[in-house]
Amino acid sequence: MAETSAAIIARIEDLARERGIPLKVMLVGSAARSTWLSGDHDLDIFLGVPLGDDLGRALEIARLVAPDHVEKYAEHAYVHAQMDGFEVDLVPCFLVEDASRLLSAVDRTPFHTKYVGGRISDREDEVLLLKQFMKGVNVYGSELKVGGFSGYLAELLVLCYGSFAEVLQAASAWRPGQRLDLEGHGTGRHDEPLIVVDPVDPGRNVAAALTLDKMLQFAGAARSFLAEPKLDFFFAPSQPPLSDEELIARINERRTMPILLEFAAPDVVEDVLYPQLRKAEGSIKALLERSGFSILRSDVSAYRDRAVMLFEMEVWQLSKACRRIGPPAWDAEHIARFLAAHPRPLSGPYIANGKVVVEEARRYTSARDLLEGESANLSLGKHLSASIRDGHNIYAGYELLGIKDEGFRTFLAHYFQAEFRIG
Amino acid sequence: MAETSAAIIARIEDLARERGIPLKVMLVGSAARSTWLSGDHDLDIFLGVPLGDDLGRALEIARLVAPDHVEKYAEHAYVHAQMDGFEVDLVPCFLVEDASRLLSAVDRTPFHTKYVGGRISDREDEVLLLKQFMKGVNVYGSELKVGGFSGYLAELLVLCYGSFAEVLQAASAWRPGQRLDLEGHGTGRHDEPLIVVDPVDPGRNVAAALTLDKMLQFAGAARSFLAEPKLDFFFAPSQPPLSDEELIARINERRTMPILLEFAAPDVVEDVLYPQLRKAEGSIKALLERSGFSILRSDVSAYRDRAVMLFEMEVWQLSKACRRIGPPAWDAEHIARFLAAHPRPLSGPYIANGKVVVEEARRYTSARDLLEGESANLSLGKHLSASIRDGHNIYAGYELLGIKDEGFRTFLAHYFQAEFRIG
Repeated sequence: MAETSAAIIARIEDLARERGIPLKVMLVGSAARSTWLSGDHDLDIFLGVPLGDDLGRALEIARLVAPDHVEKYAEHAYVHAQMDGFEVDLVPCFLVEDASRLLSAVDRTPFHTKYVGGRISDREDEVLLLKQFMKGVNVYGSELKVGGFSGYLAELLVLCYGSFAEVLQAASAWRPGQRLDLEGHGTGRHDEPLIVVDPVDPGRNVAAALTLDKMLQFAGAARSFLAEPKLDFFFAPSQPPLSDEELIARINERRTMPILLEFAAPDVVEDVLYPQLRKAEGSIKALLERSGFSILRSDVSAYRDRAVMLFEMEVWQLSKACRRIGPPAWDAEHIARFLAAHPRPLSGPYIANGKVVVEEARRYTSARDLLEGESANLSLGKHLSASIRDGHNIYAGYELLGIKDEGFRTFLAHYFQAEFRIG
Repeated sequence: MAETSAAIIARIEDLARERGIPLKVMLVGSAARSTWLSGDHDLDIFLGVPLGDDLGRALEIARLVAPDHVEKYAEHAYVHAQMDGFEVDLVPCFLVEDASRLLSAVDRTPFHTKYVGGRISDREDEVLLLKQFMKGVNVYGSELKVGGFSGYLAELLVLCYGSFAEVLQAASAWRPGQRLDLEGHGTGRHDEPLIVVDPVDPGRNVAAALTLDKMLQFAGAARSFLAEPKLDFFFAPSQPPLSDEELIARINERRTMPILLEFAAPDVVEDVLYPQLRKAEGSIKALLERSGFSILRSDVSAYRDRAVMLFEMEVWQLSKACRRIGPPAWDAEHIARFLAAHPRPLSGPYIANGKVVVEEARRYTSARDLLEGESANLSLGKHLSASIRDGHNIYAGYELLGIKDEGFRTFLAHYFQAEFRIG
């Protein structure tokens, strides 16, 4: 890792010198501060450009260093490439003096490296233990698909509490609203479940991407581990894809009705795709529940070039007759409109609990029919709506056996297991 | 009616004289005040005893007057008999000076007769119209089975508003909380939907037995009638019992699951039986809904010597798997107890919305099984619980065809129709 990063940095510096471009090249992230977890394959190299200068010339150099690259885009463009087996990001950024006056989020990274680098010495192992523990209990990673702890957040926790064991001890007692402020300089209010004020930017919450459930999952795992420390906390059991027989067994023992909406994943990065999938999942859940159905659990996933939303139904079949509850029985004007809108009731109109009620035939008596009929009409965000309208498949119950993708079957295995360590 | 009542009164007076008992015999109720609706067959004759005297001697005379009687009991004993085709009640009561110092509710009746009798002259026809209208729109009768308007209440409404038409006009605008106080002497707070202060007893609400829905049904019918007056408002269409073919048609078009609990009606009067049936209906509804099922509508009835509770299910079948939501994920002590109580989950434990959740097998996946398994364990009031434990039947869906009773089929006809005039 050290050799590869040194070689890349040297090559960038050469090219900058040749062109007379003032670049400050920096290895940042965990690789730069000896908190780099073996098995991680990310190298982050930042190409610092003086304020007022042009990021485009730095990007040009990045392209030359990694001829076989893809260009990505966060707040501005950067280059991603595989080099010597590593996933390397070459990121142009501005060299700002003060982290609170950033032009973009990536410009903050060098400040993090500097802050942690100057304080972490002799405690790198504690950080490595903590990160590996977080991986093992499935809460590591601040990407939106995961919603867990970032490496920088793990480092700050060690700086704050002192050691891996002390982090676990403290986290055991965390509740939503826990606040940590190493520099005692926090400004601004945050309503995330965990607030860790960025030492280099008083208005920022380092734990902003951490979800409530991942925070509490970590706290629960910490309690479990302290009560009965075991090596396997550090290594999540690998989950083999679900076989046909296992899938049939799960369906038979649960006797739910799993309904899957499957379509082409829009061509966007996971940090864009997953929030859209989750939002769409919420919209479809609301549609199903508004229509009288009931959902045991749901989840989303993307594998290969496909995306799926799984709704596991507790109630998937309803009576044809349904109640429509109208206005209060003394509101003659609205009653007239209500009755005009429901001209041929199966029963009623009658009065129940002071309101006018009719019973009429409902449009969809099965959850599957509702999804078939309405999912293309829902407003699910531009990427997903377009993709679903272009074509989608619905699989229900044993029809799930028709999808043999290993990625899908691994998702199902995780879904049905759904077991976390909670003390 | 006049002949029959005069003959009975004369016979009572003779017997009292023979025994030297000071009795004041009174024809009360609508028969006494020319607001007696043809088709009604009730004669109420009260045997007034001076305060401090013994009601037992009056009851003795009542027994002699109607040899072929049954004895009933409200606040004290009275005699009920069929005489000349009338249903006659012979009711001993105390002669009190002031209606607010009553010993029992029946002692109040002579005061009502006196109050209305002195004021209603020339408006008896208005009362008769109003009562017949209330009958026609199914809101007449203060017995607890109906929860509608009493004859005395109808009389007071005419006294208050002036005429049948004016009562309808006023009622069109009624809302819950409407208060009428003819004497302007009301005391005490009432939270019933309609409050009509008793002119002879300032603390009493004459409309206490009127339900919200019957009150609003009358108001709605009044609006409808005023908008388009028709003779048939005065005569409820007779509802023939549902034939097998009609029952099949209703079940097929509604595609609900009607589930009927049928058992021997306890040997109590309707005013005791119906409140118990309604309370039991509420308990069973709560049980079904707590267990995840959903009810479109329910109703109770008694016919011959049988009682039934009908639950028309919107959701009657659930998945085997269900969620058990446990304590907040930071509450280690309660989590330990929760996990011990759910040792073999199908999925989980996991954290959702900050709480520990497991998925496990539910006990009852069908509403019918739940009723079979649990209805004998419910605490449904002493009369019903005993009766249900002694033996009950459950009929679901087409099995309802097995009950051929005309009383039951008429109940079903009303149930499925459930249509009231609402303007």
